[in-house]
Amino acid sequence: MFEATKVGRTVSKDEFKAQRDELRTELLEAQRRLRASNIPVIVIVAGVEAAGKGEVVNRLNEWLDTRGVQTHAFWETSDEERERPRYSRFWRALPPRGEIAILFGGWYLDPIEHRFQGHCSDAALDAELARIVDFERMLTQDDALIVKFWFHLSEKDQKRRLKELSRDDRSRWKMLPEKSKFSEQYALFEHVAERVIRQSDRGIAPWYLVEAEDTRYRDLTVGKTLLQAIHARLGQQVVTEPATPPDPLQLPESASAQITILDQLDLTKSLTKEEYKEQLKQLQQEVNDLAWTAYKQRRTTVLVFEGVDAGGKGGAIRRITSAVDARLYRTIPVAAPTDEEKAHHYLWRFWRHIPRAGHIILYDRSWYGRVLVERVEGFAKDAEWRRAYSEINDFEEQLVENGAILMKFWLQVSDEEQLRRFKDREDTPYKRYKITDEDWRNREKWPQYKAAVNEMVARTSTEYAPWTLVEGDDKQYARIKVLQTVCDGLREALKKCNGANGTGVVRCGDMLRADDGCEDG
Amino acid sequence: MFEATKVGRTVSKDEFKAQRDELRTELLEAQRRLRASNIPVIVIVAGVEAAGKGEVVNRLNEWLDTRGVQTHAFWETSDEERERPRYSRFWRALPPRGEIAILFGGWYLDPIEHRFQGHCSDAALDAELARIVDFERMLTQDDALIVKFWFHLSEKDQKRRLKELSRDDRSRWKMLPEKSKFSEQYALFEHVAERVIRQSDRGIAPWYLVEAEDTRYRDLTVGKTLLQAIHARLGQQVVTEPATPPDPLQLPESASAQITILDQLDLTKSLTKEEYKEQLKQLQQEVNDLAWTAYKQRRTTVLVFEGVDAGGKGGAIRRITSAVDARLYRTIPVAAPTDEEKAHHYLWRFWRHIPRAGHIILYDRSWYGRVLVERVEGFAKDAEWRRAYSEINDFEEQLVENGAILMKFWLQVSDEEQLRRFKDREDTPYKRYKITDEDWRNREKWPQYKAAVNEMVARTSTEYAPWTLVEGDDKQYARIKVLQTVCDGLREALKKCNGANGTGVVRCGDMLRADDGCEDG
Repeated sequence: MFEATKVGRTVSKDEFKAQRDELRTELLEAQRRLRASNIPVIVIVAGVEAAGKGEVVNRLNEWLDTRGVQTHAFWETSDEERERPRYSRFWRALPPRGEIAILFGGWYLDPIEHRFQGHCSDAALDAELARIVDFERMLTQDDALIVKFWFHLSEKDQKRRLKELSRDDRSRWKMLPEKSKFSEQYALFEHVAERVIRQSDRGIAPWYLVEAEDTRYRDLTVGKTLLQAIHARLGQQVVTEPATPPDPLQLPESASAQITILDQLDLTKSLTKEEYKEQLKQLQQEVNDLAWTAYKQRRTTVLVFEGVDAGGKGGAIRRITSAVDARLYRTIPVAAPTDEEKAHHYLWRFWRHIPRAGHIILYDRSWYGRVLVERVEGFAKDAEWRRAYSEINDFEEQLVENGAILMKFWLQVSDEEQLRRFKDREDTPYKRYKITDEDWRNREKWPQYKAAVNEMVARTSTEYAPWTLVEGDDKQYARIKVLQTVCDGLREALKKCNGANGTGVVRCGDMLRADDGCEDG
Repeated sequence: MFEATKVGRTVSKDEFKAQRDELRTELLEAQRRLRASNIPVIVIVAGVEAAGKGEVVNRLNEWLDTRGVQTHAFWETSDEERERPRYSRFWRALPPRGEIAILFGGWYLDPIEHRFQGHCSDAALDAELARIVDFERMLTQDDALIVKFWFHLSEKDQKRRLKELSRDDRSRWKMLPEKSKFSEQYALFEHVAERVIRQSDRGIAPWYLVEAEDTRYRDLTVGKTLLQAIHARLGQQVVTEPATPPDPLQLPESASAQITILDQLDLTKSLTKEEYKEQLKQLQQEVNDLAWTAYKQRRTTVLVFEGVDAGGKGGAIRRITSAVDARLYRTIPVAAPTDEEKAHHYLWRFWRHIPRAGHIILYDRSWYGRVLVERVEGFAKDAEWRRAYSEINDFEEQLVENGAILMKFWLQVSDEEQLRRFKDREDTPYKRYKITDEDWRNREKWPQYKAAVNEMVARTSTEYAPWTLVEGDDKQYARIKVLQTVCDGLREALKKCNGANGTGVVRCGDMLRADDGCEDG
C-alpha cells in the first residue's frame, strides 16, 4: 500500500511559489462559499512519526482564514475525559456547519497506538475500525465532508528525520523497549497502519496517502486535495444517501393486524394507597442506598423518560429525585436546541452534556425525540429519522461500554385518562403551565405517535438498554413500577460491578479504568 | 448573628398545605415572567451540616418548572478543573438569562471549608471574600439576581440530626480529628460562617438566614423569599447602578494636551532583511524551546493581539505559531458571540474556553473588544464598558494567579501605512477576504479609537499583565519585537518557576498544585 509514497516526488522552490498564491486565493474563496453552506469539514492529519504533521497543520492554518478553522490534538487525556465515553472528546471537537476542524490523528490515534504497542489484538482493532466506519458514515450523512491525510516516509528517510529531531521527548519511538530494532518497529507500524487505512478507506471518507519527504510537494498536495474535496462537495446538489434504512413493516388492512405493544398494556393495573405508601418508602430508601453505591463504584446511571403527554413523567422522576441526595443526580429537561446545537449533528447536544462517572442523570424527554415528535411532525426528513435508530443504538452502546447503567421508560395512559388529566391541568393553577394548545393537537395525532412508539421500541430496546413500558393510568402503580425497575436494574448492575465495558466487547482504544471502585468484585 | 435562627419557628401540616399550592402557582408564574426577561437568577444554598440543604434543593425542583432550572454541586474537582482558574467552574454553572441556577455552596463552599479545617488564615479568607463581593457585584450589574440562603441549626438540633444520619460518609464532621469536641467544632464553624456572611452580605446579593429545624417552616420560607426576590427584581425598571466608574480625564482644548501614548511610538523603526532573517531564525528556535519548557512546567501562556486594522496581527501570530509544535498552541479568533454566549455576561465566552495548563493560546482580538469596538460603536452601554476595565483586570489576575503567563500586544501602524495596506489587500487576491467596507468606516473613527486605546492601556496595563505597544509600519520590525517580547517574557517567567499564584497573593480557596513541573526551582 505504501509503495507509492516512496517514489521521491518533489516540487521545486519556483514551482511552489508559482502555485502557492493561486492555491491560497482559491482556498479562501472555497472557505467563503463553505461558510454559507451547511457543511462541516473534518480534516484528519495522520501518518508516521516525523512526517511533519505539525508542519502541515501550520501550513493549513497559514493558508486558510483562521476564523472558521479549529485545530484539535488528542494526545492528553484528563481524568474527566476518561470518565466519559471515549468518543465524547471527538464530538466536542466536531466543527459547526460551514467551518473546518483539523484533527491531529482524530479517532485513529488511539487504535493505531494501542495496536502498535501491543495493547490489543488485530480483532480488537477491527472492532474499533467498524465503529469508526459507522461514525464517519453518520457524520457524512449529516452533510459533513471528511478528508483524511496519511503522511508516509520510507524507512531510510524516517530514520534520518528522527535523528535530526533533537528533542527526544517528542518521539513515540522512545517509548518502545530498547532492544527493538528500528526496522522491526517500522515494519510493525506499517502493518498496523495498512490495516487501519484499508478498513477505513471508504468513498464517503477516503484516505489520501501523501509522500512526506519533500515538504513543498507535501504541502501543495494537501492544499490542492483539500480544495478539490471542498469544491466537489459544494458542487453536489444532493448528498448520495447510502443505502436507505428499511421501510417500516407494511401492515395488512385489518385492525387486529395493527395492534401495537402499547395495546397489550393492562392500563387498569393499580395499587391501593396503603400499598403505595409502604412500597414507596421502602423503594426510596433503597434507591438512595443504591445511588451511593453507584457513586462509590463510579457507575453512571442514565434514566430516560418518554411517554404520552400527561403520562406522568414528571411525577415518576420526582419520586426518584426526592429520595436521592441532590448532589448525586441531575435532571435534564430536553427543550429546543440552541443555535450552536443546530449547527451540529442532532446527537451533539446530548454528547456535549455527558455526565462524569458516578452520577444519576434523568432525561425528561431525550434523543428519542428524533424518532417520535420529529418523525410525526415532519421536523426530520424521512432518511434522518430512519437512520436515527442505529445512531441511537450506537450512542447508547458507547454509554454502556463506558460503564453506564441505562434504563428507558415509556409512560402510557389511556385516551380517557389523558383527557381527564388535561382537564385537571387546566383547572389547577400550579399545573396550568404544563398544558398547551400543542398538547391538544398532539392528541389528534395519536395513531401516528403509536406507530412511531411501536417501531422505536422494536428497533431500540436492546439487551444493554431495554425499554420498560409503564401502565400509567394509576399514578401510584406507575411510580412504583418505575422505582422498582430502577432499583432492580441498579442492584443487578452493581452486583456485577464491572466498571467499564459492560457489553463485554473490547475494542482497540478502550482504556482500562484505574479503579472501578468495586468493593466485592 | 445566628441567635435569630434558633428560636423554634414552626409551621403546622395544615398551614403548610394551605399555603403550598398558592406558592407553587405563584412561583411558576414568576418563572414564566422571568423567562421573558433578561435576568439570570442565581440561588445559593449553604449552611451547617445536616440542615437539609439537599431537601431544600429537591423541594425547589419540585415546585419550579424544571425546564429552566439547573442545579450544580461543586464537591468534586477534576484534574481539568484544577488546571484552570478556580472560578472557571462557577462561570460554567452560571444560568443563561431568564433561567435559574441553584448552586450548592457555590463560591462559598471552598473558603468556608478551608478556613474551618485550618488550611488558611482569617486574612486569606478576607481576601477571598473581597473577590466574591466583586464577583457578585459584576454579576448583578449584568442584571443577575442573586439570592443566598444560609440554613442554621442550634448545637443541640444539629447533634441530634447528625446522629440520625446513618451514613457517616456524607458528613464533613467525620473528616475532623477525633479528639475534637463537637461543641468546639460547632463554635468554630459558627465563627467562620459569621465572618463569611458578614463580609458578603451586601444589598446587591443579600444573605437570608433560615432556621432549619422545622422542615415545613424552612421550605415555605425559602419558597416565599425566592418568590419575593424575583417579584421585586422583575418590578425594577432599572437596576440601580452602583457608583458609576469614573469619567474619563477631561482634556484641555489643545493639541499638545491631547497626545496619546500611541503618538509617542516611533513608527519609522525598521530592520533590514538580513537582520530580520537572522533574528527570526534564532527567536523561532527559542520560542519553540520555551514552549516545551512551559508545557513541562504546566504553565499556560496567554497572548493577546489587538491593533488597528491591517496592523499586522495575523502576520505576527503566524511567526509564533509556525515555530511552535502545533499540539502546543491554539489560535482563537474572536468573532461575534453565539446566542448561548449572548445569554450570559460578556466575559462568559472567554471563561468557557479557558485552556488547560501548559498550552499557548493566541487571541486574535479578545475581551478588549468591550472597551474598543463596543465602546466606540456604541454596542456597549456607557456603564458597561466603563466597568469592564476592572472586570477585565480581575479576570486577568485570576489567569495569572492560576499560573498563566499573560502578554498583550497592541499593533500600531501610521495612517499612511494603513491606507497602503488596505489598497494592497484589495489588489492581492488571497488577501482580499481581509478587507471589508467596515474597515474603511473604522478608519474615519480613528480619533475615537485612539482615545479608547489610550484609556485601555492606562487602565489595564498591569504588573502581571502588561501591554506592549508595537511599532508596526515595518512588518519585519514588528514581528521581531513581538517574538522578542514573548521570548523574554517566557524566559523570565519560567526561570522563576512558580506554578500557581504568580501574584503572590494567597486567598482562602487556593489549592496547592500537586506538581508544578519545576525542574530547577
